[in-house]
Amino acid sequence: MCSHWVRQFDFFMHQPIVIPDKLAIEQAHKRIVGYIQSTPVMRSSGLDEMAGCSLFFKCENFQKIGAFKARGAMNAALLLRVEDRAKGIAAHSSGNHAQAVARAAKILGIKSYIVMPRNSSEMKTRGVKGYGGEIFLCEPTIEAREKTLKEVISKTGATEIHPFNNYDVIAGQATAAKELIEEVGNLDVIVAPVGGGGLLSGTALAAKYFSPATHVIGAEPAGADDAFRSMQSGKIEPTASNSVADGLLTSLGDKTFQIIQNEVKEIITATDKEIIGAMRLVWERLKIVIEPSAAVPLAVVLKTKEKFISRRVGIIFSGGNVDLEKACSLFSSQS
Amino acid sequence: MCSHWVRQFDFFMHQPIVIPDKLAIEQAHKRIVGYIQSTPVMRSSGLDEMAGCSLFFKCENFQKIGAFKARGAMNAALLLRVEDRAKGIAAHSSGNHAQAVARAAKILGIKSYIVMPRNSSEMKTRGVKGYGGEIFLCEPTIEAREKTLKEVISKTGATEIHPFNNYDVIAGQATAAKELIEEVGNLDVIVAPVGGGGLLSGTALAAKYFSPATHVIGAEPAGADDAFRSMQSGKIEPTASNSVADGLLTSLGDKTFQIIQNEVKEIITATDKEIIGAMRLVWERLKIVIEPSAAVPLAVVLKTKEKFISRRVGIIFSGGNVDLEKACSLFSSQS
Repeated sequence: MCSHWVRQFDFFMHQPIVIPDKLAIEQAHKRIVGYIQSTPVMRSSGLDEMAGCSLFFKCENFQKIGAFKARGAMNAALLLRVEDRAKGIAAHSSGNHAQAVARAAKILGIKSYIVMPRNSSEMKTRGVKGYGGEIFLCEPTIEAREKTLKEVISKTGATEIHPFNNYDVIAGQATAAKELIEEVGNLDVIVAPVGGGGLLSGTALAAKYFSPATHVIGAEPAGADDAFRSMQSGKIEPTASNSVADGLLTSLGDKTFQIIQNEVKEIITATDKEIIGAMRLVWERLKIVIEPSAAVPLAVVLKTKEKFISRRVGIIFSGGNVDLEKACSLFSSQS
Repeated sequence: MCSHWVRQFDFFMHQPIVIPDKLAIEQAHKRIVGYIQSTPVMRSSGLDEMAGCSLFFKCENFQKIGAFKARGAMNAALLLRVEDRAKGIAAHSSGNHAQAVARAAKILGIKSYIVMPRNSSEMKTRGVKGYGGEIFLCEPTIEAREKTLKEVISKTGATEIHPFNNYDVIAGQATAAKELIEEVGNLDVIVAPVGGGGLLSGTALAAKYFSPATHVIGAEPAGADDAFRSMQSGKIEPTASNSVADGLLTSLGDKTFQIIQNEVKEIITATDKEIIGAMRLVWERLKIVIEPSAAVPLAVVLKTKEKFISRRVGIIFSGGNVDLEKACSLFSSQS
């Protein structure tokens, strides 16, 4: 049976209106598996010793476009109705989601329209252009980004693929933790970073359906601890946006917040110093390049060791897209 | 039949006196496989496009101790006669071989004596100590290193494990290319870096026995092009020792030179600028950390593209042990 027929749509928004269930995530995985990397899980006896637990690193830095975002965008794009596909897809993003949407469009042979703030790094705009995405530059404010995107959509009829507040995107992001669980099994905890909450809510759903005994913990920069505060207050709090983990400076959406409230055990924050220290450890010990946002879960585990002692702990390395000069200046600022 | 019984020894040196044959490399692989990583082979469509060929990267940066050296040292240590084992093993090295020997000794529960120049990086001495190696510091000259090692050996009765001019070590290093060939098959070329020649001669033997149609090319820093010059002159030339690829500043030994002369198609050099450029590409595109020495093969392929066009090219990433501050200063020197 075609998965389209059983999904409950909001027909105005062309998006499903219910939280992805087990079947939705299984189908998302089947749908995207030919278009993404089944990324490896790495280990390090040195880091295990340092943390006092068994760490399993899911390496989404090796994912297509260098980050987990390739999963969610691909799933959402593949689920477009035929008549919508023809009009293309659109997003505003200064980061990994921009490339993920442009790549998905290229694979489907459709157009993508990407609204990017003027101060986006040249590496990121080059990446989008490399996938044939059409870029619309705007002022670097959330208002300008949303306004420009609205204009682009009204002109083109393209469908917006939101970076996180979209159940198809969340179902796609869930496949990273699903793969981790399938490969490693019996995890006591999975720790994932939280920005807008697409990866964390997907991870929580994957654990709920495929490994119910596994707790999920969110890892957040202390300088952008809106998810932590939202969990305390019970409503979506605005972000403070002050951290080197520049992929995590977003507030939650209503869809991600609801899932995180219900399924995530707790959110723990780490300072920029702790994040950079964890990032350095990964580069030096695992010999892999991860971006600051991806280092937050390890920073959290190392700073609250007592919570994880002797446990089997999954860590989602969300991405590896970092400008080398920037990374080097972060390392030198801490040494 | 025990492999010891069929090996031809120089009984004074406790070392085999013939070039490893196919069986010797197969047995080396079986002997060490439980003690090393079977490292992954990575691909990059972006780098393939840039090079105009299909690249297969054998990631020895993920090897134990962060470099291929773990293979040869382990094989040589496992082949020690019981009465020699008890007296321990020794080496002089400022780099990866020091850690490889100390680690092999730790696994066997024997002592290791490592002669290191006073200016060795703290990371390297810490690594050796971490494996329980006893360090003897000396002046940073080859004469002082050899003299100190001689004294240590005469005092302890330990057996020297030479970093490259030792057939057991060469057979161990050959297992990296053997794994690459087994995983990927049908390679037209394998490119390996050359310093003392242990990895390159092992790679050449592995290709000869397990993939005879595969050419092997050596990649050498232009500032330490002694292997290139030795191939021209027909005798071992001294090294110039001036390159960022600090793992490759050694001259060939008689054993490695003989194999390289007979089995290696050619040696191509790359400048430091080309090496650093290739290293940056690997960090940025593959999201992995390799040391400058490991980047020389890719630098060579990118500078002499016409030789490799449309070929299936194996590249040995020899290691990933680089001080982050040093790597960052290399990148900034080129930007």
